[in-house]
Amino acid sequence: MTYTDQLQAYYERVAQECIAGLSLDCVIFGFHDTRLKVLLLRWKDTNEWSLPGGFIYKDESVDTAAGRVLCERTGLDQLFLQQFHLFGDAVRYDRDDTWQRQKMPMKFGDRWPERTISMGYYALVDYTKVTPSADFMSDECCWWEVGELPSLLFDHQHIIEVALKTLRLQLNWQPIGLNLMPQKFTIPELQRLYEAVLDRPLDARNFHKKITGLSILSRLEERRTGGAHKSPYLYQFDEVNYQKALINGNLNFV
Amino acid sequence: MTYTDQLQAYYERVAQECIAGLSLDCVIFGFHDTRLKVLLLRWKDTNEWSLPGGFIYKDESVDTAAGRVLCERTGLDQLFLQQFHLFGDAVRYDRDDTWQRQKMPMKFGDRWPERTISMGYYALVDYTKVTPSADFMSDECCWWEVGELPSLLFDHQHIIEVALKTLRLQLNWQPIGLNLMPQKFTIPELQRLYEAVLDRPLDARNFHKKITGLSILSRLEERRTGGAHKSPYLYQFDEVNYQKALINGNLNFV
Repeated sequence: MTYTDQLQAYYERVAQECIAGLSLDCVIFGFHDTRLKVLLLRWKDTNEWSLPGGFIYKDESVDTAAGRVLCERTGLDQLFLQQFHLFGDAVRYDRDDTWQRQKMPMKFGDRWPERTISMGYYALVDYTKVTPSADFMSDECCWWEVGELPSLLFDHQHIIEVALKTLRLQLNWQPIGLNLMPQKFTIPELQRLYEAVLDRPLDARNFHKKITGLSILSRLEERRTGGAHKSPYLYQFDEVNYQKALINGNLNFV
Repeated sequence: MTYTDQLQAYYERVAQECIAGLSLDCVIFGFHDTRLKVLLLRWKDTNEWSLPGGFIYKDESVDTAAGRVLCERTGLDQLFLQQFHLFGDAVRYDRDDTWQRQKMPMKFGDRWPERTISMGYYALVDYTKVTPSADFMSDECCWWEVGELPSLLFDHQHIIEVALKTLRLQLNWQPIGLNLMPQKFTIPELQRLYEAVLDRPLDARNFHKKITGLSILSRLEERRTGGAHKSPYLYQFDEVNYQKALINGNLNFV
């Protein structure tokens, strides 16, 4: 089956079996090497990138569809996806320009409405634990730093910006650290995550004092060795206290 | 024009001019007499109530549609509407049961898809400043206490519950007090709002100490007179400091 045949079959199925005019897009955040990253797909035979997205079957819950689409397009499974915004502007992007940049061998769905509204989901993953893989429509599936994004199709630049803004607002009442950090980490490593999400530097002494004062971390006996400085202790989240602090809204300190 | 004619014309226009299968519903919160209230419409010739909701024109932004629909159905204008959740379950409610309870003289749109997904918006209004009025589909438009809701159509009970949960989570980073309170209020009156949103009692001394410690309130020279107790001072929000505190996430204290 050629790529064109595959694409034809895919869009045929979408037009017949999916809800018309509604899509979903997933912003998957990871954290690695002091940087906040987002997972993108490179559109087949182009240098254009997009978020993993897709459509909802007529008899499928939208939230269920988000998990299925993400798995089909990136191989990632069992992610905790959160709705964050419905992208419902009458004109979301320049369709002709997008069409040219996509270099699609065929036009998508004559039976599809002129306009598509998209539900945005975000997820947080432990970067070290996942191995994303591209689907048939993409040549690559990989991580990009949020500060250095490539050329993005559709309104996906805007969708990522709104997701980032949401992450900043929710830093204190969603388990963002818990989901983005590896199991063991140092306080400076956790500080880098907060700085990456907030996009501003934080005072190290102040951060250390406040974060350890929240009772959400357990210090381990192990230390991180091999760095230039005195080996810092490793910590992990105390999940019971962390959840309690989230419920009480007590993570608010930066 | 009879009610049936009006309804026929309305649904004809919706089927022709609106996005198929997508609706929106608005949860309008007000605060009065120590109680959190929500604005509901009583469906024509029934004792069944619903949220003000409607449809999106094919060339209209979803957010714009939310403001227009709310104005058409309740007379309220210029409200700050916030998206909070997309209700996208495959089966949201029992259609036959709902149909019977609505007692509609005609069946809505043969050309309409089997399933409707609804975008939920909430708004906060100063109860003393608005005069809601019903539209042609409703016999009444009025406030109900969130703890004592009447029989609700569709999945609107669930939508209100999700809106309330959102309000609780957002109490510390949305200007909820500012939008729900009248311009001048006493500290105990503000405490009643926090208690109504959180649905639990708060300690009066602790609340007073913490809320006045946030620098978001200005004490006026006036006092509330006529109560059984010593006349308490009136306060108003210091809007500049309030916005600053919201941005810094410093409203977190209950």
